[in-house]
Amino acid sequence: MVRAAIFAGPRRIEVGDRPDPVVTAPTDAVVRVVLGCVCGSDLWYYRGESPHALGPIGHEFVGVAQQVGSEVRGIAEGDLVIAPFTYSDGTCAHCRAGWTSNCVAGGSFGNHGIDGGQGEAVRVPFADSTLVRVPGSSHSDETMRSLLTLSDVMCTGHHAVMSAGVRPGSVVAVVGDGAVGLCAVIAARRLGAARIIALSRHPARQALARSFGATDILAERGDAATEAVLEMTYGVGVDAALECVGTGQSMATAFAIARPGSIVGAIGAPHGVEVPIETVIFRNIGLRGGVAPVRTYIPELLDDVLEGRIHPGRVFDFETDLEGIAEAYAAMDERRAIKSLVRVGAV
Amino acid sequence: MVRAAIFAGPRRIEVGDRPDPVVTAPTDAVVRVVLGCVCGSDLWYYRGESPHALGPIGHEFVGVAQQVGSEVRGIAEGDLVIAPFTYSDGTCAHCRAGWTSNCVAGGSFGNHGIDGGQGEAVRVPFADSTLVRVPGSSHSDETMRSLLTLSDVMCTGHHAVMSAGVRPGSVVAVVGDGAVGLCAVIAARRLGAARIIALSRHPARQALARSFGATDILAERGDAATEAVLEMTYGVGVDAALECVGTGQSMATAFAIARPGSIVGAIGAPHGVEVPIETVIFRNIGLRGGVAPVRTYIPELLDDVLEGRIHPGRVFDFETDLEGIAEAYAAMDERRAIKSLVRVGAV
Repeated sequence: MVRAAIFAGPRRIEVGDRPDPVVTAPTDAVVRVVLGCVCGSDLWYYRGESPHALGPIGHEFVGVAQQVGSEVRGIAEGDLVIAPFTYSDGTCAHCRAGWTSNCVAGGSFGNHGIDGGQGEAVRVPFADSTLVRVPGSSHSDETMRSLLTLSDVMCTGHHAVMSAGVRPGSVVAVVGDGAVGLCAVIAARRLGAARIIALSRHPARQALARSFGATDILAERGDAATEAVLEMTYGVGVDAALECVGTGQSMATAFAIARPGSIVGAIGAPHGVEVPIETVIFRNIGLRGGVAPVRTYIPELLDDVLEGRIHPGRVFDFETDLEGIAEAYAAMDERRAIKSLVRVGAV
Repeated sequence: MVRAAIFAGPRRIEVGDRPDPVVTAPTDAVVRVVLGCVCGSDLWYYRGESPHALGPIGHEFVGVAQQVGSEVRGIAEGDLVIAPFTYSDGTCAHCRAGWTSNCVAGGSFGNHGIDGGQGEAVRVPFADSTLVRVPGSSHSDETMRSLLTLSDVMCTGHHAVMSAGVRPGSVVAVVGDGAVGLCAVIAARRLGAARIIALSRHPARQALARSFGATDILAERGDAATEAVLEMTYGVGVDAALECVGTGQSMATAFAIARPGSIVGAIGAPHGVEVPIETVIFRNIGLRGGVAPVRTYIPELLDDVLEGRIHPGRVFDFETDLEGIAEAYAAMDERRAIKSLVRVGAV
């Protein structure tokens, strides 16, 4: 048996015993989890605002391959691996086009009977096309934390930036100061944005945003935020507005501060969001984004993490072990933590 | 006095006398209209489905410059000119970025006290940055008709294609068989689309779509259209879905047939449109488009018209003179005509 976090209903995160994951298809691997974490999107079902089946949860993890199926070629037992939050077969038309999160045979961890990353071990389908092997076996704790963010939040922030078409010299605004919004700051800086306006009213998050490359911090929200951004941009609006929350207000703000011809890059799971179609059409402001194709993005971001050029692991400001995971959720729910790390096993 | 079409209320298009347009700012020109036409978007107010001030109407025209202000440099009296349906100052941040339809000092003809293109003469603000001079003074009637489409529909079809990112080899579907949808077929073909699926159940429009480069015609609508497109694309969906209507159903169809990672190119004036945000996010399908920056697009399309590579003027299948314009609206309203040409004056 392995220990794993179990969703037992809104605000009820328990830890229980689950059967040992085993290789069931020759393309599977079983990964022993080293680090897991809690995602902002986990809070939706935690708060009862989205449905989720009772059972295993968590979709972000790094770990060590413990067992690999007979057809797995690129991953060997003992390899340190990053799991994207969605698994993908690597062969369907969407995977071949790079849209691994839309794989026709894919799904996400901690859903639909697939083991969750908030547990001691996980069966990973399509191991070769899902997992990314990390070179080297001994990495600092700081590096390990950053590797974990490649499972979701860093790649998702990068997806917001890619979706909005951020380029060298761009003026960018990031709506949302959660872990993904903060990673979007890193991603925008990484691609050469000249000015990065982070919307945040939380001192610790403001400081982190600045350390990640934000040039301006705005504590305003709603209409006041819009006015402030327009004033900062001489009435023009930003070249790229990144919507990193998923609420109606954040989407409205993103569209209001975007300049004509630009694209709102949106990665928040939508709750009560209405796309202002009149703004799309009459102001020529587009919308792109969604569930990030993490598997496609990891390789290029991995080098930056391993060579210490980016430090997304700094979004973790709370940690616990697996048995204490309920507190990891509570800390994020109450906004005491930006993102909670869960130490599950040794490397 | 000049004669001009006047909107007198839903389904009441009259022709009346209007004061002679005159140059009021040194950057103005007065254009004597040669050809005007009725736009699909004119039908929204004709049918009472959108508000419109009572007064002059029509936003598409080609004509001859009759008088130019003292600061106009690029247009001379006697020049044959195309008017984009929006005027633009050419100097604001949006104009400089190419988004002339979002000019901060701009507007559209036949609106807000600006003369309409369905009349004998029009005062054109910002003549240098609005009008495009057509080389040569004697063009065939076929060429003149095609030049007129550069005022709006051909450029708007091109905008759908550009917004969706059509490239050589793309598989494209065009939702909507109005003049803009048909021009989108031309634009997609022009950019090298390998397969162009036109959704149309109207035999004359189907034939025109084929002559413009459509490779497949689908008479189905709604779910049946979606199923057919998915079957034609091996379940993948199209690389670019072009929404050229502006209704809820056409937008829903466009999103349903688009492949993950693609962009719906939308140019229909929205009426009852809800953007399926869940599809945007969970299928990674973007949305771009809007009021086409016609002034930016005309130069590159103009060459293709003058050299006979494209023939968008073939969308005109009904014609009348200015005094008969009520019938031009009625023919389009009743779908007896794809697009109505209005012969206003001699070249």
